[in-house]
Amino acid sequence: MEIDHNFYMNLAVSEAWKYQGLTYPNPAVGCTITGEHDEILAVEAHHKAGEPHAEVNALKSAYYKLTQNKAILQLRTSKEIHTFLLQNHNNIFTNCSLYSTLEPCSHVGKTPSCANLIAQLGIKNLYIGVEDLNETAAKGNAILAKSGLHVSLHVNKEKCENLLFPFQKFLKDRFVFFKWAQRFNGTTDAGTISSSKSRKNVHAMRNVCDLLVIGGNTVRKDRPTLDARLVNGKAPDILILSRENEFDRTIPLFNIKNREVTIASDFSLLKNYKNIMIEGSEKMYALSREIVDYYLCYLAPSFGGYEGFKNIEDKFDILNASKEEEDIILWMKRRI
Amino acid sequence: MEIDHNFYMNLAVSEAWKYQGLTYPNPAVGCTITGEHDEILAVEAHHKAGEPHAEVNALKSAYYKLTQNKAILQLRTSKEIHTFLLQNHNNIFTNCSLYSTLEPCSHVGKTPSCANLIAQLGIKNLYIGVEDLNETAAKGNAILAKSGLHVSLHVNKEKCENLLFPFQKFLKDRFVFFKWAQRFNGTTDAGTISSSKSRKNVHAMRNVCDLLVIGGNTVRKDRPTLDARLVNGKAPDILILSRENEFDRTIPLFNIKNREVTIASDFSLLKNYKNIMIEGSEKMYALSREIVDYYLCYLAPSFGGYEGFKNIEDKFDILNASKEEEDIILWMKRRI
Repeated sequence: MEIDHNFYMNLAVSEAWKYQGLTYPNPAVGCTITGEHDEILAVEAHHKAGEPHAEVNALKSAYYKLTQNKAILQLRTSKEIHTFLLQNHNNIFTNCSLYSTLEPCSHVGKTPSCANLIAQLGIKNLYIGVEDLNETAAKGNAILAKSGLHVSLHVNKEKCENLLFPFQKFLKDRFVFFKWAQRFNGTTDAGTISSSKSRKNVHAMRNVCDLLVIGGNTVRKDRPTLDARLVNGKAPDILILSRENEFDRTIPLFNIKNREVTIASDFSLLKNYKNIMIEGSEKMYALSREIVDYYLCYLAPSFGGYEGFKNIEDKFDILNASKEEEDIILWMKRRI
Repeated sequence: MEIDHNFYMNLAVSEAWKYQGLTYPNPAVGCTITGEHDEILAVEAHHKAGEPHAEVNALKSAYYKLTQNKAILQLRTSKEIHTFLLQNHNNIFTNCSLYSTLEPCSHVGKTPSCANLIAQLGIKNLYIGVEDLNETAAKGNAILAKSGLHVSLHVNKEKCENLLFPFQKFLKDRFVFFKWAQRFNGTTDAGTISSSKSRKNVHAMRNVCDLLVIGGNTVRKDRPTLDARLVNGKAPDILILSRENEFDRTIPLFNIKNREVTIASDFSLLKNYKNIMIEGSEKMYALSREIVDYYLCYLAPSFGGYEGFKNIEDKFDILNASKEEEDIILWMKRRI
């Protein structure tokens, strides 16, 4: 195994994929920090909008690793961590390298600027997967260049681009992903398929989705709630894709506060939303095929069930595969 | 992500799984070496019987990383590398830690003893996944203890045990694994399924298997060769599981030199072999269910085909998942 810049960047990429879909409206970003001797000090990711960026989470972990000073572990907000690091860094980062899948932000928004922090801490080398194409990026580059930092662009560029794509897509118009859970034999029926951790992960995604699309037959048959109760999150708006308008209104999904439910026979409602999850099986897959950006499959290591994917022909590129608890989680792009 | 002893051992475990099935009659073993500051110097595995053990491959890589002396990169045999390292180490390893999924060997066999080498190089810490239960192990422990090395046992024990199990099984009697390639919808028909790298990997396994089991219908329908031509390897003996003895003898598999082909209606022939691969689909899966130790699935990220796994009910524990080229490769154990 080659232990090189790509290896350290890959660690950041893998960590970031764990939070893909959860960081909306922010991008999924990962960060690795290595020390003077190339020792790994931290591998962290951005978890959720409003929480610290990947670089700040990684600098926090690296600071603790280098100093064993537990004070920093108590800090939660980005501002607190920024302030603490600027006051207490004692130049411990001056021989460190930072690998970020995305160029560190230069603008002061919900959190202070990461580019500024990195420059002030005296980080030696900065390895970046893809540049931030926002208008303020030039300013960030200027900050970093002025500080004497050595910057390398496009480390593991393709992998970092795949990771960043959902963010770029919802900035542009909307990001649509199709999520399904299946067994090895392609079945999606006959009871619970994926592990409790996978199901919790889906609820966390529903919590940040603004629209969830589901088929009419599934609603009638499964009588679902489609909320985010496993993570105490908010329930997304629902589009029921159906030619018929008649539904038993005691089905739980209709009785959630602060949720809009629309029944329609096409996808035109999607234009009002930015981050959209489609849940379904073969029929919905076929219907949504032309509007889906990424596919998310929770693959349970089992055989069983009866109905599922049978008559589809398609190929995918796997963008990330990870094992969580029992299941394999695959993020994919359909080959066109 | 926690960067700790388990992390370094996990790197060794993942690297070793790439060669599972290929190291017979040796175990699949992985090794990570870290330096004075916990920097990763090498992550390597044992590739093939007769070639250097994982520890020797890792020490070779680590030596090059520390010295940039290219002389060592020319050395191929274990003995050459042992001799070179003992003569040229200049105490560069005295603050290094070595993580090995299996206790380093103490006996001098095809290759010199790894325990001896590690002790003489002055490695500081040795982290071991599982002990070597061979009779000579006590001797190895003695060598290591005497050298002043700090030894920690059972780091990531369960993962290392899963990795080692095939070796223990063929030492005891025989290791039987069921290999199949499928698409997302569980199909195993309709042309090529897995990537060229996956198919080459299967040929490399056939090269070290001593028996390959295949169903009679598959032989009649596919007219296979079942050799290891993609890696210029040897063709294993064949057991055709069939109630009928009549086969068209112009089917290529019958015409390979130095191969025995047996046609039988049961698995009793297996008692004469140690490392056995069963290739098939649903029918063979059902027939061999009670005698299979591990399952190896090449999962192609595609939908298509018609026939495959439909009427099975089973659950698996995934022991290792990796992405190679396009496919996902899964080593699994059936839950009982």
